[in-house]
Amino acid sequence: MEERIINHRTVQEIAALVNGTIDGDERTKIVAVAPIDQAKIGSIAFIVSPDYDRFLETTLAAAVLVRPDSPPTDRSCLIRVPNPYLAFVRIARELFSIGEPQRQGLHATAIVNPTARIGKTLSIGPYSIIEANSVLGDDCIIGNNCTIGKGVKLGNRCQIGNNVHIANGVVLGNEVIVQSGTVIGSDGFGYAKDGDTYYKIPHIGQVILEDKVEIGANVTIDRGTFGETRIKKGTKLDNLIHIAHNVVIGENTVIAAQSGISGSTEIGDNVTIAGQVGFVGHIKIGNRTIFGAQAGVTKNVPDGITVSGYPAKLHARAKKEEAVKSQGPEMLTRVRKMERFLKENFPAFHKE
Amino acid sequence: MEERIINHRTVQEIAALVNGTIDGDERTKIVAVAPIDQAKIGSIAFIVSPDYDRFLETTLAAAVLVRPDSPPTDRSCLIRVPNPYLAFVRIARELFSIGEPQRQGLHATAIVNPTARIGKTLSIGPYSIIEANSVLGDDCIIGNNCTIGKGVKLGNRCQIGNNVHIANGVVLGNEVIVQSGTVIGSDGFGYAKDGDTYYKIPHIGQVILEDKVEIGANVTIDRGTFGETRIKKGTKLDNLIHIAHNVVIGENTVIAAQSGISGSTEIGDNVTIAGQVGFVGHIKIGNRTIFGAQAGVTKNVPDGITVSGYPAKLHARAKKEEAVKSQGPEMLTRVRKMERFLKENFPAFHKE
Amino acid sequence: MEERIINHRTVQEIAALVNGTIDGDERTKIVAVAPIDQAKIGSIAFIVSPDYDRFLETTLAAAVLVRPDSPPTDRSCLIRVPNPYLAFVRIARELFSIGEPQRQGLHATAIVNPTARIGKTLSIGPYSIIEANSVLGDDCIIGNNCTIGKGVKLGNRCQIGNNVHIANGVVLGNEVIVQSGTVIGSDGFGYAKDGDTYYKIPHIGQVILEDKVEIGANVTIDRGTFGETRIKKGTKLDNLIHIAHNVVIGENTVIAAQSGISGSTEIGDNVTIAGQVGFVGHIKIGNRTIFGAQAGVTKNVPDGITVSGYPAKLHARAKKEEAVKSQGPEMLTRVRKMERFLKENFPAFHKE
Repeated sequence: MEERIINHRTVQEIAALVNGTIDGDERTKIVAVAPIDQAKIGSIAFIVSPDYDRFLETTLAAAVLVRPDSPPTDRSCLIRVPNPYLAFVRIARELFSIGEPQRQGLHATAIVNPTARIGKTLSIGPYSIIEANSVLGDDCIIGNNCTIGKGVKLGNRCQIGNNVHIANGVVLGNEVIVQSGTVIGSDGFGYAKDGDTYYKIPHIGQVILEDKVEIGANVTIDRGTFGETRIKKGTKLDNLIHIAHNVVIGENTVIAAQSGISGSTEIGDNVTIAGQVGFVGHIKIGNRTIFGAQAGVTKNVPDGITVSGYPAKLHARAKKEEAVKSQGPEMLTRVRKMERFLKENFPAFHKE
Repeated sequence: MEERIINHRTVQEIAALVNGTIDGDERTKIVAVAPIDQAKIGSIAFIVSPDYDRFLETTLAAAVLVRPDSPPTDRSCLIRVPNPYLAFVRIARELFSIGEPQRQGLHATAIVNPTARIGKTLSIGPYSIIEANSVLGDDCIIGNNCTIGKGVKLGNRCQIGNNVHIANGVVLGNEVIVQSGTVIGSDGFGYAKDGDTYYKIPHIGQVILEDKVEIGANVTIDRGTFGETRIKKGTKLDNLIHIAHNVVIGENTVIAAQSGISGSTEIGDNVTIAGQVGFVGHIKIGNRTIFGAQAGVTKNVPDGITVSGYPAKLHARAKKEEAVKSQGPEMLTRVRKMERFLKENFPAFHKE
Repeated sequence: MEERIINHRTVQEIAALVNGTIDGDERTKIVAVAPIDQAKIGSIAFIVSPDYDRFLETTLAAAVLVRPDSPPTDRSCLIRVPNPYLAFVRIARELFSIGEPQRQGLHATAIVNPTARIGKTLSIGPYSIIEANSVLGDDCIIGNNCTIGKGVKLGNRCQIGNNVHIANGVVLGNEVIVQSGTVIGSDGFGYAKDGDTYYKIPHIGQVILEDKVEIGANVTIDRGTFGETRIKKGTKLDNLIHIAHNVVIGENTVIAAQSGISGSTEIGDNVTIAGQVGFVGHIKIGNRTIFGAQAGVTKNVPDGITVSGYPAKLHARAKKEEAVKSQGPEMLTRVRKMERFLKENFPAFHKE
């Protein structure tokens, strides 16, 4: 773990950005951001949980963002704020970031169809193509070598990576992020079988990503066969995820890498899905449910439940069954011992 | 589920396209396609199975494609055809589609090597590169920002998405579809180990996709180490699938998203593979086999078998074993009860 | 399996390239490379293991690369070398390959920022973008439609495929290979939750790929949140793999397709990971460990261990437990039989 030295900021500047109260020397110089347990000299860190307050006694951080009620220390300069984590994120982004995409305006090689309507201070990278009748809001950033298809709508402040394909008719709300290599609006895997032959069903539906949806790299989201595939407000998807046609995902749900959701399944709000989870098609998943890594979900799940395993079941039960399975060889020995005893002592048992 | 209103067609026009017999008012106006159970006013739907005939009594669809022997109704205008599903697909595609790729000819920014031979009425999108000695058939559509490598052969009527890489020497038959972000002909994962060091084996084989093969988005298909990787006629692959070097897949096989097939494995004809299934290398999978989601297939599978689970086994047996596993905690209780009884009543048992 | 006839070489030329000793006619013409058991007339094959020496009696190969101590034969011309496999790889690559990327210099449409420093005899394909302050070493080959971000560093002799995005600040050593469609330096899946809302954490760390690291197609490697994601010298990744933020992978480790490693997990040196394996975050995996396909790894693994299954455990134990599970239905029958016997014969048992 190495921090990046980018520039110098004083605690005074930093505290001003996040409306924090300084407890220490406001002239302290900060050169990097870091986690509290890995901070080196000159860096700023944060502590949210009282369980982590003990790090105040050992950290090398020059400054720490803490809660209003955090204990005092002579070791580091403290900046007290209501939400230290969010303050930290803002400082990292605005004062120390190199990762932020930069606006470059409309590159000379970008091909924008004359019928497209594009917003103010938009940025479109080299070799990207904006097709007919698309509508792009204000302050969007489109990367390099992208295709924004016919009739696509983007809200304001969307960020699209490189080598992204947003296919015809897809609709994105405001502040949607799509990372590089992702395909949104691919044709779903729908075929009409006739004898042994499969005929492709034309996919004429849409994909709708609501406000603040964020999609990782190399993800695929299929359009609806008819109707739509929809991901609701504030939901976040990691990399290499597959979302099939006509799936609906609720608000503020998070899905980790390499998970896949089959056709027409509905996922609720505030759901947490770990990595490499699979959902069969046409099921309904309740709100505030949680799915363990590699779970294989084969039926409806009611609200508020935590499930895991294949086929997925209540996590507590799955763990219990798994524990018994792991004692299987010993249980078999015990069963054999009883059988042997019964056979040896009760001739009648043997005959059964 | 919202339908897309694109334009108006009369039942007369629609019936003429699919050679159907009209049972109702031929002047009925149709504005959208929809599934029978979700159809709104003005839409056309279809029913194949007699089990669905009951929807004729409740649907809002203005017209329904039905079998010749389907029951009459006063509710909707019927169009009788031998295969309602295929008729529906054709109508959706030809009369109501917006998703169909459009021909745009050879874009001025497409770079076509002078030694490439390209067919009639071909379309190549902006910023795509067609390398030396490639041969592209008639009526192909190549998307944007693609690379078609050296010596690649495409048959007629192929459709290639955007940001696709078809590597040197790959051969595609007629009517092959490759969706966006897919890589065909990547080097396989083959190394010569020498001590602790791995040396890359040059992959000099090919990939061959036969007629009517269809490949989803962000798929990877590795070329043969020597020899070839081959996918036979009519086989369909979903998104994010991995096909390793020297794999052979038979005809009319379907593979759902995120499945992976390891090197040199052979898959038969008419096979059905669900999502997130994995096959180890160097095995042989029979014709008309079926694989449940997330199955881990570790050995040969004979023709006609349905398997599931990890390690994959006969589906009926896997379900039975899974059922017993799920009774494990209770079985353990029963075993303990018997042990306790035997110990308490038969001192000899205890001694064993 | 078909070989590719590309050109003619004599055994004399081939033996000279690999410093081999000829045992047969040095004028023998070779037109293709092939595995020993599939070789056709005119091809060259190789044998490493004495177990394969028996193929010398049946092969059609015109020449075979063998060990110094391999038995003589009249059937094929032998070329004796210390490491027949490596000699074969070199011959395939240098004399018979078509897959090798070819240098084309800096294409006129490649956009290289004036502040970028690029090495000697570099090749950059059409429609690729090299952004500000990047440093590319000598003899690198960058494909088509790629983005090399701001401040990226590439060593010498790197090969980058097509449609690749190497994001701001990523560092590659010498002889690194990245295949098409891969994204290196995407933002990790890190959010600060506040109530039900997720706030994106800015990812300002790096990705470092050390010398001779090789990455397959459509892989995603996230940058560190702070600090770095690092893959050490000589490690090889297959296609469609996900590497999360702050993961560290040791030297000479191989990871097969569709595996995923969650945030901050550390993988040791000389590790072998099969396909579709998943690792939870924040665990530590020892050196020379081996992971079976589809394993779900939930905790630390010490050096030298082979594990499999979900949750992953010692492979030998996992197999034993799996074997007992597969006898579950029969064990249940045996338990029922004993219960029935005890109930029928001992009224006291029933009462318990």
